[in-house]
Amino acid sequence: MNTTTALRKMITRGEVARVAGAHDPLSANLVQASGFDGVWASSFTISAVNGLPDMSLLSMADYLDAAGRMAATCSVPVLADCDTGFGGVPNVAYLVQRYEAMGVAGVCIEDKVFPKTNSFVDQGQKLLDVDEFARKIEAGKNAQRDPDFVLVARTEALITGHGMPEALLRAHRYVDAGADAILVHSKKNSPREVIQFLDEWQGKAPVIVVPTTYHDWHFADAGNAGVSMVIYANHALRAAVRSMSQVLSRIRSSGASTSVEEHISPISEVFELTHLDEWLHLEKR
Amino acid sequence: MNTTTALRKMITRGEVARVAGAHDPLSANLVQASGFDGVWASSFTISAVNGLPDMSLLSMADYLDAAGRMAATCSVPVLADCDTGFGGVPNVAYLVQRYEAMGVAGVCIEDKVFPKTNSFVDQGQKLLDVDEFARKIEAGKNAQRDPDFVLVARTEALITGHGMPEALLRAHRYVDAGADAILVHSKKNSPREVIQFLDEWQGKAPVIVVPTTYHDWHFADAGNAGVSMVIYANHALRAAVRSMSQVLSRIRSSGASTSVEEHISPISEVFELTHLDEWLHLEKR
Amino acid sequence: MNTTTALRKMITRGEVARVAGAHDPLSANLVQASGFDGVWASSFTISAVNGLPDMSLLSMADYLDAAGRMAATCSVPVLADCDTGFGGVPNVAYLVQRYEAMGVAGVCIEDKVFPKTNSFVDQGQKLLDVDEFARKIEAGKNAQRDPDFVLVARTEALITGHGMPEALLRAHRYVDAGADAILVHSKKNSPREVIQFLDEWQGKAPVIVVPTTYHDWHFADAGNAGVSMVIYANHALRAAVRSMSQVLSRIRSSGASTSVEEHISPISEVFELTHLDEWLHLEKR
Amino acid sequence: MNTTTALRKMITRGEVARVAGAHDPLSANLVQASGFDGVWASSFTISAVNGLPDMSLLSMADYLDAAGRMAATCSVPVLADCDTGFGGVPNVAYLVQRYEAMGVAGVCIEDKVFPKTNSFVDQGQKLLDVDEFARKIEAGKNAQRDPDFVLVARTEALITGHGMPEALLRAHRYVDAGADAILVHSKKNSPREVIQFLDEWQGKAPVIVVPTTYHDWHFADAGNAGVSMVIYANHALRAAVRSMSQVLSRIRSSGASTSVEEHISPISEVFELTHLDEWLHLEKR
Repeated sequence: MNTTTALRKMITRGEVARVAGAHDPLSANLVQASGFDGVWASSFTISAVNGLPDMSLLSMADYLDAAGRMAATCSVPVLADCDTGFGGVPNVAYLVQRYEAMGVAGVCIEDKVFPKTNSFVDQGQKLLDVDEFARKIEAGKNAQRDPDFVLVARTEALITGHGMPEALLRAHRYVDAGADAILVHSKKNSPREVIQFLDEWQGKAPVIVVPTTYHDWHFADAGNAGVSMVIYANHALRAAVRSMSQVLSRIRSSGASTSVEEHISPISEVFELTHLDEWLHLEKR
Repeated sequence: MNTTTALRKMITRGEVARVAGAHDPLSANLVQASGFDGVWASSFTISAVNGLPDMSLLSMADYLDAAGRMAATCSVPVLADCDTGFGGVPNVAYLVQRYEAMGVAGVCIEDKVFPKTNSFVDQGQKLLDVDEFARKIEAGKNAQRDPDFVLVARTEALITGHGMPEALLRAHRYVDAGADAILVHSKKNSPREVIQFLDEWQGKAPVIVVPTTYHDWHFADAGNAGVSMVIYANHALRAAVRSMSQVLSRIRSSGASTSVEEHISPISEVFELTHLDEWLHLEKR
Repeated sequence: MNTTTALRKMITRGEVARVAGAHDPLSANLVQASGFDGVWASSFTISAVNGLPDMSLLSMADYLDAAGRMAATCSVPVLADCDTGFGGVPNVAYLVQRYEAMGVAGVCIEDKVFPKTNSFVDQGQKLLDVDEFARKIEAGKNAQRDPDFVLVARTEALITGHGMPEALLRAHRYVDAGADAILVHSKKNSPREVIQFLDEWQGKAPVIVVPTTYHDWHFADAGNAGVSMVIYANHALRAAVRSMSQVLSRIRSSGASTSVEEHISPISEVFELTHLDEWLHLEKR
Repeated sequence: MNTTTALRKMITRGEVARVAGAHDPLSANLVQASGFDGVWASSFTISAVNGLPDMSLLSMADYLDAAGRMAATCSVPVLADCDTGFGGVPNVAYLVQRYEAMGVAGVCIEDKVFPKTNSFVDQGQKLLDVDEFARKIEAGKNAQRDPDFVLVARTEALITGHGMPEALLRAHRYVDAGADAILVHSKKNSPREVIQFLDEWQGKAPVIVVPTTYHDWHFADAGNAGVSMVIYANHALRAAVRSMSQVLSRIRSSGASTSVEEHISPISEVFELTHLDEWLHLEKR
């Protein structure tokens, strides 16, 4: 099965899917190996590994390259976080062409103004005009070749404080414009506003959530509330940052790497993750 | 001070320098923030984050891009691991031009045959003819514009079992050909053979070591034995792999991310590492 | 001399410089070989060779890669056309860091709204608020490390029909904000409005022109009128398109390539342009 | 129809196909617009537009990026010139995975030693051991996912002076190893040795020729002699070099661009080639 078809089935099968964020092919492989259903190519974490904040500084070519490399090494679908679509309406058509050609199963665009700022930053959160965003969705949907390629519309109406009616109005509008699913983003500490959204939404189209701040919402409860996909967007990167900081500091302070050896993966594990034996086998034959 | 000059001083100052491996700008920034003197742009770990084993599959353009992005976000020097030089003699001249133009402070090439296999793999370890490697060094040195740009010659004579006399002969030959330092690689569990090398070498040129297997050698002891630089080549990546695996598994098995929150960096730490406030400040002004 | 210094001297020496547009390193080398003083890394032609219109579809990473490769193979300065700065104020700071690090001597940003449309297209020409553009210039200038790196501010006030007073007001404002030169763009068939601008400007800062439509203005006359640099922005590409179309059609219709041989460069000329002998010499030694 | 299927049918349909070389998406589009059946992503010309000789200096990532961009903008198949396979046996498996994922319809590898030198250069022409090259073909064929993806084996036995028996022996061996077609390269001024090859080959598998030096061989005659595909490998680039040189020199010497206007494409033609109106239409809706 194509990954596009797999992703489409995943959001429509009536059972909640679990997806985790990755920032490079290795972390994408770890997401897959841990049993997740798919990979979220997060613009926050891809920016971060490039040493940059999530502020539309890195450009589409960089995000595309990262997502494409993930897709090339994973068998589960990759859903790419495409921010605001990297510009205006034609940019969305262009990105759909390029991401689809690179083997990415779907993309997600959000209804903020370009250049955007990360949703957890207080400053600079502006919603795009709803009609213009709907035109972006239409242009994106018209640009895909494979009918199963997925376009997710993300509304930041709750993040920007525009309230539930605006979020619902926008979600309806985006689905009418062709969006295959709605990602409703919230930065509350509880899933309450997301649950309220789901109640009023009444399953018009699949809903995706990113419980970064309301992290104690069990995925099964989310599923029961009507969620089609839960994305753990940035935990792999945050795990890496914590452990790399600790290990590097310990090597520095102890003067040798002996004390960290038991806390880090052996080289053989990296060999396995990168399928060294299979590649060596080619050399031998 | 240019990073090329900083790197040159670092290996000639008579005090051991400590450098750690990175695979992307973020890990390079963590290496710098942990107090290391420089960054090793490791081909093993750059391959790994691309989902590939360290077997000359990824190409020069990929390694160059990774090292160049690190150099663009770090103030400490970046020393790039350039494998065998990615081909023949002209390839080494070309790589020196390109890496120098991208702001990398120095490069290291090794005397194995292209395509190479990682030194910790038993299979496929072949030494290049010593004269041909010396010609690579000459071509590389002739290609640099900045006189302080550093070219390190790495001998794999001990790794490939050719013995100490061969290692010494090669090291002498490489320094005569213009190498600014010798990286003598060993996969023994103790520093004994490296110490023997240093004894017989008698400080003809700076020596760099990579104590991956003889990890209990304190850097000060290495310095006293005549080492100019110790490289902790792959620990940051191995820390990241371990922690990402654990955190992703825990999210998967527990059904929510709450239990991992205390083991991972908060989002605010990623904001700080990527200098979000400075970038936002530009927006405000 | 650094290319940044060379570019700065070129626009301030009181003698008109001539620069031509290129779309890849080979065309940049031909510009240099033809005796031009510098290379314009044109976003119109770089988009075109990528099969795309000049509408902010290609992203900064692509333009940067193209300009950086030109800078790596040319000894004359490369001035990069950076459209609107690829986003907001922080994007301009970021682009200056990146272009400077890649060896580009200077950049030019224009005062239209992102995503922009090529100046010779009737549709979609919107000027950015003057204060916001001035902030872009300030952010760009603050981001450069080398004091000789050049930032050119291009005003599209005449292109968009805002008239001479607006063009002059903007030019003054941009120079006050730190711009090193003003590119005043016009799509008239005569240089009259540019000459009027120059008369009223009275040499407050260097002025650059792009006589695509008023192509019969001799560069010496432009110099006498107060122009510091004339850019022939897209002629190399347009020459290539015409000749490639003709040659391909002729091969197709004649059934063999014999009839085109005298109209195309021999392979030996391509060898020379790419310095084959110098590279082979490295192999031989 | 997929481009892989189209390419496979093209070489097996019993009617000679005509393909021309391109170096970027624009030249690929011109090849397509001129009525050719497919595009040859030439490593000689891709190297050249990057300012480099055809000596394995540019790396796989660069060639892949160029070929992938061509495939993204063309509807006819792109056949990528992959030199020696960029390394050893595993490199060929890797390149097939990557090129196929980027939408390229087929690849061609040649039986010279890496790093190679262009076939029209006298120096440095070494044939790879026939068994090792056969293993490359096997590894490549095993790596493809789409059964229609095409792998062409190119023998340089005639170029390197090893004679007809060696060329035939190798061609048979390569087809037995799985090659979908044989490219037999010759640098003679007449097609005589190619015709001799075809006579003795007796159509065991499709044969591709590149009549750069024996350019007066009409494609229909080649077809009658048993050729499946004729590649005009580098004429578009050579046309571009000649015309860009002339036009730039004329602008330089005449002091204005007026005299070249009638010899170059108007801007409107570049707009058309890059489908400006279709992209603008998206903006309008």
